Amino acid sequence: MSSYLPNLSETVRQALLEDIGTGDITTQATVDPAINAVAYLVVKTEGVIAGLPVVAEVFSQVDPELHLRFFVKEGTRVASRTKLCEISGRAQSILIGERVALNFLQRLSGIATKTARMVALIEGTRARIVDTRKTTPGLRALEKYAVRQGGGYNHRFGLYDAVMIKDNHIVASGGITQAVRRAVSQSPHTVTITVECDTLEQVEEAVAAGADIILLDNMTTEDLQEALDIIDGHAIAEASGGVSEETVRAIAETGVDIISVGGLTHSAVALDIGLDLML
Amino acid sequence: MSSYLPNLSETVRQALLEDIGTGDITTQATVDPAINAVAYLVVKTEGVIAGLPVVAEVFSQVDPELHLRFFVKEGTRVASRTKLCEISGRAQSILIGERVALNFLQRLSGIATKTARMVALIEGTRARIVDTRKTTPGLRALEKYAVRQGGGYNHRFGLYDAVMIKDNHIVASGGITQAVRRAVSQSPHTVTITVECDTLEQVEEAVAAGADIILLDNMTTEDLQEALDIIDGHAIAEASGGVSEETVRAIAETGVDIISVGGLTHSAVALDIGLDLML
Amino acid sequence: MSSYLPNLSETVRQALLEDIGTGDITTQATVDPAINAVAYLVVKTEGVIAGLPVVAEVFSQVDPELHLRFFVKEGTRVASRTKLCEISGRAQSILIGERVALNFLQRLSGIATKTARMVALIEGTRARIVDTRKTTPGLRALEKYAVRQGGGYNHRFGLYDAVMIKDNHIVASGGITQAVRRAVSQSPHTVTITVECDTLEQVEEAVAAGADIILLDNMTTEDLQEALDIIDGHAIAEASGGVSEETVRAIAETGVDIISVGGLTHSAVALDIGLDLML
Amino acid sequence: MSSYLPNLSETVRQALLEDIGTGDITTQATVDPAINAVAYLVVKTEGVIAGLPVVAEVFSQVDPELHLRFFVKEGTRVASRTKLCEISGRAQSILIGERVALNFLQRLSGIATKTARMVALIEGTRARIVDTRKTTPGLRALEKYAVRQGGGYNHRFGLYDAVMIKDNHIVASGGITQAVRRAVSQSPHTVTITVECDTLEQVEEAVAAGADIILLDNMTTEDLQEALDIIDGHAIAEASGGVSEETVRAIAETGVDIISVGGLTHSAVALDIGLDLML
Amino acid sequence: MSSYLPNLSETVRQALLEDIGTGDITTQATVDPAINAVAYLVVKTEGVIAGLPVVAEVFSQVDPELHLRFFVKEGTRVASRTKLCEISGRAQSILIGERVALNFLQRLSGIATKTARMVALIEGTRARIVDTRKTTPGLRALEKYAVRQGGGYNHRFGLYDAVMIKDNHIVASGGITQAVRRAVSQSPHTVTITVECDTLEQVEEAVAAGADIILLDNMTTEDLQEALDIIDGHAIAEASGGVSEETVRAIAETGVDIISVGGLTHSAVALDIGLDLML
Amino acid sequence: MSSYLPNLSETVRQALLEDIGTGDITTQATVDPAINAVAYLVVKTEGVIAGLPVVAEVFSQVDPELHLRFFVKEGTRVASRTKLCEISGRAQSILIGERVALNFLQRLSGIATKTARMVALIEGTRARIVDTRKTTPGLRALEKYAVRQGGGYNHRFGLYDAVMIKDNHIVASGGITQAVRRAVSQSPHTVTITVECDTLEQVEEAVAAGADIILLDNMTTEDLQEALDIIDGHAIAEASGGVSEETVRAIAETGVDIISVGGLTHSAVALDIGLDLML
Repeated sequence: MSSYLPNLSETVRQALLEDIGTGDITTQATVDPAINAVAYLVVKTEGVIAGLPVVAEVFSQVDPELHLRFFVKEGTRVASRTKLCEISGRAQSILIGERVALNFLQRLSGIATKTARMVALIEGTRARIVDTRKTTPGLRALEKYAVRQGGGYNHRFGLYDAVMIKDNHIVASGGITQAVRRAVSQSPHTVTITVECDTLEQVEEAVAAGADIILLDNMTTEDLQEALDIIDGHAIAEASGGVSEETVRAIAETGVDIISVGGLTHSAVALDIGLDLML
Repeated sequence: MSSYLPNLSETVRQALLEDIGTGDITTQATVDPAINAVAYLVVKTEGVIAGLPVVAEVFSQVDPELHLRFFVKEGTRVASRTKLCEISGRAQSILIGERVALNFLQRLSGIATKTARMVALIEGTRARIVDTRKTTPGLRALEKYAVRQGGGYNHRFGLYDAVMIKDNHIVASGGITQAVRRAVSQSPHTVTITVECDTLEQVEEAVAAGADIILLDNMTTEDLQEALDIIDGHAIAEASGGVSEETVRAIAETGVDIISVGGLTHSAVALDIGLDLML
Repeated sequence: MSSYLPNLSETVRQALLEDIGTGDITTQATVDPAINAVAYLVVKTEGVIAGLPVVAEVFSQVDPELHLRFFVKEGTRVASRTKLCEISGRAQSILIGERVALNFLQRLSGIATKTARMVALIEGTRARIVDTRKTTPGLRALEKYAVRQGGGYNHRFGLYDAVMIKDNHIVASGGITQAVRRAVSQSPHTVTITVECDTLEQVEEAVAAGADIILLDNMTTEDLQEALDIIDGHAIAEASGGVSEETVRAIAETGVDIISVGGLTHSAVALDIGLDLML
Repeated sequence: MSSYLPNLSETVRQALLEDIGTGDITTQATVDPAINAVAYLVVKTEGVIAGLPVVAEVFSQVDPELHLRFFVKEGTRVASRTKLCEISGRAQSILIGERVALNFLQRLSGIATKTARMVALIEGTRARIVDTRKTTPGLRALEKYAVRQGGGYNHRFGLYDAVMIKDNHIVASGGITQAVRRAVSQSPHTVTITVECDTLEQVEEAVAAGADIILLDNMTTEDLQEALDIIDGHAIAEASGGVSEETVRAIAETGVDIISVGGLTHSAVALDIGLDLML
Repeated sequence: MSSYLPNLSETVRQALLEDIGTGDITTQATVDPAINAVAYLVVKTEGVIAGLPVVAEVFSQVDPELHLRFFVKEGTRVASRTKLCEISGRAQSILIGERVALNFLQRLSGIATKTARMVALIEGTRARIVDTRKTTPGLRALEKYAVRQGGGYNHRFGLYDAVMIKDNHIVASGGITQAVRRAVSQSPHTVTITVECDTLEQVEEAVAAGADIILLDNMTTEDLQEALDIIDGHAIAEASGGVSEETVRAIAETGVDIISVGGLTHSAVALDIGLDLML
Repeated sequence: MSSYLPNLSETVRQALLEDIGTGDITTQATVDPAINAVAYLVVKTEGVIAGLPVVAEVFSQVDPELHLRFFVKEGTRVASRTKLCEISGRAQSILIGERVALNFLQRLSGIATKTARMVALIEGTRARIVDTRKTTPGLRALEKYAVRQGGGYNHRFGLYDAVMIKDNHIVASGGITQAVRRAVSQSPHTVTITVECDTLEQVEEAVAAGADIILLDNMTTEDLQEALDIIDGHAIAEASGGVSEETVRAIAETGVDIISVGGLTHSAVALDIGLDLML
C-alpha cells in the first residue's frame, strides 16, 4: 500500500456495503447531521500497527470531508494506550465508518504483531519468516502486506506466480524428477520451481532435478541439518510445517534460508483497538 | 446456507480469482489433464465442522464434473483423522480448488469450534452465546453462519437491521433518553432498540426510556446482578466485553439472556484440515 | 441519503451506463464542447420533492466540474413552476445527464408525493403510514428513502432484517404457534416477529404465541376493532391490504398503530419535472 | 427475452441480493427444508401478462431444482383469477423467491396492460404507440420489452442508438438547420435523425434540413394536421406530449405515424398478482 | 471521449488490475516513494494519435496527484520523436501506470493511423471509411472512438442499434423480402435496415423491399457499378469485403457512399510509443 | 484454458453484453425462434488455431442447449477451408453468438499463427520465443494462452509476479547494483530478478550484482555475442527489442536463451474465419 493497489477501493467499498447496507439506522436516528466531532483510534494493548492506509480509505469513502491525522507510522511497534490517529469532521460519518475501519486495522495489526514476534525470535540467524497461501479469502493482498509490516517476507501470492510441486502433484505427475522436468520445460523463464520434500531421499532427487527451492516439510532439526548438507547451496532451503513460537528458533539455527508459517495469517488474533469520540 | 445466499457464488468466484489468477502454473505443467484421482478432506484435530456447502461451491465452480460425497453433516463435532468428504474426478481440478476450499473450511470450522466451546461452558444456564460485527471484511454472512453451526446465535448483521445506541452515539446525541426517543420516533416499527450501558445509572435511564435490550458493557458479575434487578424483565439483558473461556460461566450464571463475544470471529484460529490425494 | 449509502454511486453509474452506453451521439454531434449553459430543474405540478442528492450524484459523475445550487430542501412540498435547482457548466454535460437525473427525481418525488397524501389523510390519528417490500427491483433503498421524505415510515427492508410469518409460512410450518416458537428459538434476539392474520382466531393464537407485531390483513374496520381488543396492547397492530385514499382514514381511526401500503411504491406515478436550459 | 439478454441474470441476481441479503430469516426458522410444496401465480385482476421469463430466471437462481409450468403465453390478456404458472419443489425455495418474482411480474404486466389499453384505443388508425426513455433506472430493457408484449413498439433505447435533437439541443447548437447538418455529417450512416418541433415554423425548417423523423411536441390536433401537411411524407411524423387515454384517439386520427407516451413506463401501476402455496 | 463515457473508468480499472494485481514488486523494491520525476510520452514513428484521454484516466487512477500536460491534440498526425505529453510527480506512480497507459495509447493510435491512411487514399471521392463490429472484445467503444480520430466514421455499435440482415439471416428467415418486411413491422421507427447482398439479383430484391442501406459484399468494381445503377439513390450504398489499401481507391471511385473495413480494428498494429523518465 | 480460469466466464459475459446490449434486433425480427440450424466455423486461410474453449463458452452462455462438435485440436495448424467446429441448435442463438465467438477466435488464432511463424524461424536453436506485457487491455491471460498454443512461451504476467529492473527504474533508483540489492533484500524468495541492459557495461554490472536474468535490449548480434561471453552462464540471457521475422534467426543463433517479442500480441492480425449456417 506504499503504492497503488487497484483493488483496494473495491475491497473497502464491499466491506462498507456489507456493514452499512441500506443505511446506519442508529446514527441516522440519533445523531444530528450538523454535529462535528473529533475521534481517536487508540490501541488497548501493545503491538505492531498495520492497516492505516486502509483506515484512510474507509473514512474517505464514507465522507471525503473527514480529516485524518496519523500519529504513528505504519509498521511501528506501539505501547498500549497509544493514539494512532485523529479523525475530525461530521460525527455521523465517523460513527458510520468506525467498525469497518477497526475490523481491517485490528486484523492486519494482529497479523503484523504475530509476525514481529516470530521475527524477533530468530534474530541473528540468516532465516526469513515468510507467509503462505493460508490467508482469508478476499484479503490476501492486505494480509501479505501486513506480514511485511511486521518484518516478515512474502511467499508466492497465488497459484499463478511460482511453481510449487507439493506431495499431491508428485503423486499425480509420477515423481519429482518428471515433475521438475515438465515444469522447467513449460513454465516462464522468470519463474522459480519449489519442490516440497518429506524425506531426505526426496531432497536428493529434487536437488538433482534442478529445483530452485527445496521446501523441507515437517522435518526434525536433525533432518533439516542433513537436508542442508545435501542441498549444499544449490538451492534455497525452506522449512515449513509445525512451526510455532516454541520451535522457530531451533529451526532457524539449523541454517535454513526460509521459514514459512501458515499461522501468521490463518490463526492471528485481532489486536485490540478502539475509537473514542468527543464533541 | 441451508437456503439460497445470493452472494455466495460471487464470494467464491472472487476467492478463486485471488488464488488462481491467470492460472495454476504448477498443475498445468506437472499433471496430465487426462488423469483422474480421488481425494479426501481429513480433519487433523478434533472440532466442529462448518463450511461444507462452501467446499461444494468451490469445487463445482472449478469443475462441474467433479463428484463430491460428504461423510459428516454440517455442524457436527468430529474426532481427529475423520474423513469429511471424498472428491473424485480430474486430478487437475482437485488440485486447483484445494487451497481455496480449505481456506474457507478451516476458518469457518475454527469459528464453529470456538463457539461450541463457549456454548458448552454455559450449558444449563439461560444465556445464549451470540456473535458481533467484529467479523472479517467480506465474510460476515459466512462467519455468522459458522457461529450458528457451533450452537451460537447471531446478533444484528450490520448497521441496517437493528438500532444499537453505543457510547459514542450517546455522546453525539446528548444522552440516552433523547437518543432512545429519537430512535423510537424514526425507526421502523419492526426494529428493536439496544442501549449500551457502562454504569447502573445508565441502565436505569435506558430501561426508563423504553429500550428493548440493555447491553451491559464490561461489568463485574456483581454489577451484572444489580443491573438485572433494575431491568427486572422489562428488557433483554445482554452482557458484553471481556468475555473469555475463563469468565463466561460466571457471567451466564448471573442470569443474563445474551452474552456477545467478539472473539468468536475476530480471534478464532483455523481448524487443521488437509486434503489427501490418490490416483 | 442524509448519510453515506455505499451503493448509491454504483446505482447511478449503472443508470448512466444504461442510458448513455457508448455515448450521447446527439449531443456529441450538435453541441460544441466549449459552450457553457445554465439549466433549471422545474416542477410542473404541485408535489413533495425527493431525490435531490441523487440528482447531485448523477451530474457529479457526468462532469465533476458542473456546479449545482439547490433552491428547495429535500422532503418539501412545492408549488407548480417551482425551480428546484440550478445547474451551470458545460452544456454537453448538462444534456447528457438530464434524463437520468429526471428519471430518478420524478420517480422518487412521485413516491414522496403519494406518501404525503396518505399521511395527510390520517392526520391526528396515532397511525403511521409505512411502505412494504413491493418496490422496484434495484431501487428499494431509494424508494424507501422517498417514503420517509413524504412523511411515511419504513417497514422491514428485506427478508433478512425482521421475521414476518405470512399465510404461506403458516401453511408450510404447520401453524402459527409452532412457527412463532421456532422463530423465537432461532432468530437473533434483536429481531421482532410479525404474524400475518386473516381471521380473529389467528389474531388470538398469534398474540398468545408471543408475536411482537400482528399484521391484520384485509380486515373490515369492524374486524380491525375486534382485533385491537384482542391484542389489547400486547403487540403492535398493523393493518394492511386494500388500503386506498378512500379507506385509509377509517382504518386509522380504528386505532391501529401501523398502516402498510404497497401502492406507495408499486403504483406511484412520476411527478412531472423538466429541465430548462439557456445559454 | 424471446432471445438471450446478457444482463438479465445479473439484474435478477441483484434483485435477489437486495431482498434476501444475508438470508431469509423467516423461512429458515419456520419452514423445514425437507418439505415440498406446489404454488400458483394467480392474477387478481384482468390484464396483459409480461415477465414470465423473468419469473423463470428468479426461481431458477434461487433453486435450479424447482419445476415451473406455465399456463399462459407471454403477452396474453388474461381474466381475473387466471392461474399463470405452477411452481413445484422445495417450499423454502418458493417462499424465498416469491416477492422478487412478483415485483418483476407485477411491474412488467402493469406496463403491458397500460400499453394494451392505449393500443386498443387507436385501433384502425395507422399510428403506433411507442415508449420513451422515461423508464425506471436499471430496468429499461425489461420495461421496453413489456411495452412490446402489450402491443406497443419501442423508441430508441438510449442516447447511443439514434439522434434526437430536442429543444435544449437546438438552444445549445444554434438552430435546427445547423444541428441537423452537423448530425448528418458526423453520425453513423445507420442512424436516423429526429427533430423535436414545438411550432410549425420549426417543422418547416426541420423537413427542409432533411430530418428523418419530426417529433411534434405538445401540439393541438389542428396543428398536428397542419404539420402533417408540411411534412407531406418526407419524414415520419411522431406526436408526443400530453398524450392520455382521453386524447390518444384524436391524435391518432390526425394521421401521425407514431405516438410516444412516457406514461407507459413512468406511471404504470402494478398489476395485482399473488402466489398461493399448498403442501 | 470528448464527452462522458460511463464505462471508461471501469475499463481502465480492470486494465490496471490485470497488470498490477497485488502490486508492482519492482517499483516497490527499487524506487524510493519520496522521489519525484518528470516523464515524456514520445512517439517513435509517424502516426495519428488517439487515446490521450485514456492516458489521463490511467495516471489519475494510479495517483490523482500526478500532473499531466499534453502537447498535441487528440486526432492529430505527428512526426516521429514528437513529445505527446509530460507527466510529473511521484516516480513510483509514473512507473506503475506506464505500461497500461502505453498499451491503450499504442493500440488506439495504431487504429487511428490505419484509418487515416485509408481515408487519405479515397480523398476527393464521396465515400466514407467506416468500421465494423470486428473489434477487440471489451474495447469496442474505445476502438470505434479511435476510428473517428483517424477521420473515419462509425458503423452500428452492436446488434442492438441497427438492423442488418446478413446472409445467415436470409437463410434462416426465408428470403430478403420477408426478412425486410418483418424488420419494418417490428423494429423501432428510429432504426434503419441494411441488407447484405452478394448478387445483383439480391440488390434488386432488397431495394424493392425497401431497405435503407444496401451492403454490397465482396463485389468487383464492375458489379458495384451495376449495383449502384440498380439502387439509383433509393438507398445508401455500402461496399464491404476484401477492402485493402490497394483496392480502396477503385472501390470509392465507383461512387459508393460507404466503405466498411474490418481491418481498421481487427488488424491494426500498435503505434510505437515510449515513456522516457528523468529525475 | 486447459484448466479452470476464474475470469473467463466474466470476460465472455462482458463481450456479449458489449455486442448484444438490449438485444439482437435483427435476429429477433427476422428469424423464427422455433427454427433450428447447423453452422460451421471455417478457416479461410492457413493458420494455427487458438480459442476454441472460448468459442465453447460464448455459445454456452448464449444458449446452453446448443451442441458443439470440434473437428480440430487447439494449437493445431490447419489448412485454408478447414472446418473447425459444428454448432447445432436454435438458429437465433447461433446468429446472436456468431460475432463475439469469431472476434475472440480470430484474434487468438492470429496471435498463435504469428507466434508459430517466429518459432519455426528459430528451429534448431536453443532459444525460446516469449511474449511481453504489450497485450490488449483486458485480454492478457487469453493472449498469453494463445502464444503458448503457437509454440511460444510466456514471460511474466504482470508487475506482480517477477522483478524486472528497466531503464526507468535504474534512473529512479540510482543504479543497477543498488536496485538489484534492494530487490534481493525485499522481494519474495520465489521471485527472479531481471535487469534490462542497453550496454555491455551494464551487463557486467548486472551480472556482478547477481541478476537472475539479463535482458539485452536492442543490441546488435555482435553485442549480443559479447554480452553472452560476459554472462557466461551465470544468468539467463534474454534478447529483446526490434525483433522481426527478418532478424529473429540471427538473434537466436547468437545463443541467447530467450527472445521476447512484443509484436506477438500488439501487432498480430486476425486470422480470417467465418461462420456458415444452413437450415
